[in-house]
Amino acid sequence: MVSRGAGARQRMLTAALDVLDEAGLAGFTMEAVARRAGASKATLYRRWPTTGALLVDAMDATYRPFPTPDTGSVAKDVTEILNAFVTLLERTPFPRLLAAFIDAAERDPALSKLHTDLTNRRREPLLTVLERGRDRGELPPDTDPELTTDLLTSPFFYRHFVAHRPIPRRMVADVITRVLNPGSARGLTDC
Amino acid sequence: MVSRGAGARQRMLTAALDVLDEAGLAGFTMEAVARRAGASKATLYRRWPTTGALLVDAMDATYRPFPTPDTGSVAKDVTEILNAFVTLLERTPFPRLLAAFIDAAERDPALSKLHTDLTNRRREPLLTVLERGRDRGELPPDTDPELTTDLLTSPFFYRHFVAHRPIPRRMVADVITRVLNPGSARGLTDC
Repeated sequence: MVSRGAGARQRMLTAALDVLDEAGLAGFTMEAVARRAGASKATLYRRWPTTGALLVDAMDATYRPFPTPDTGSVAKDVTEILNAFVTLLERTPFPRLLAAFIDAAERDPALSKLHTDLTNRRREPLLTVLERGRDRGELPPDTDPELTTDLLTSPFFYRHFVAHRPIPRRMVADVITRVLNPGSARGLTDC
Repeated sequence: MVSRGAGARQRMLTAALDVLDEAGLAGFTMEAVARRAGASKATLYRRWPTTGALLVDAMDATYRPFPTPDTGSVAKDVTEILNAFVTLLERTPFPRLLAAFIDAAERDPALSKLHTDLTNRRREPLLTVLERGRDRGELPPDTDPELTTDLLTSPFFYRHFVAHRPIPRRMVADVITRVLNPGSARGLTDC
């Protein structure tokens, strides 16, 4: 059971997602969201002073934190997280929201900052499993978890948003092999 | 010297870029571009049947093809291309255009397809230098140039559009080391 307030908030966020999904950022106005939610604009403005603030909460609502796996194997942990991420990209409203956000953030430094905060929270599970892997000696002691997180996740963003290509199921394994397991006969130097 | 027609076309594309830069996709209409260019809407529609078609040409106009270097060293060639790419991301209107495009493509399959074509052309120089490096034996014979191109370029897109973090100058070298030179004591397996 949720409180009446929480139900109303959720209904408005759902309406915001619907509007963004259909109309994109171009049609994302307080008026359109209010109409969709069957609420007054005043009610919306009481909770969200700007469309930017509403956009951030709607974005956040689509995001259920990835669990942080702890299987004892860094490759397995990373596989679990990346598979969940691919599902998020391919089967949820998340990418449309993110696309609207990418455009908005390019024009509005405040939104850009908010998006940075959201992104940082989303990076946490991967950073944690990489740090654990390093501490267990599975990864070299000079591994940079931040750069490694960039290398592991960015190819999937790129595929979806820039190259507009499908993400083959084996891509998760291929990226992990190239990024985490580079000793496997794939280098400029010979081993 | 350009012909009168080419000059008019260029003026309209410049106007389109200005409108997109200031107003984003939300304000990108034939009317706004016509007003900015001092042209009639009919003139614009004669060249571009839809705002999507205009967007594609405007996007293309910001893109001067990267030269395809041929220094004899794959690492040097890749460094040149990635440095030029970082400059494009940090010092030109390209990222704002791309951001608008990312949002538009998420909602319009035709634009998505056009963007795929543009992206494929932009990948060519990197694919070429990677293939040459493989053919010279600098890279392992089983190197996949497509995946390697994803791994080399996507961290910069991600940094700019998703993480909204600055791109440190040494990031190009770090990414190249991790992606092309993995034998350097950075792996799950020991060499």
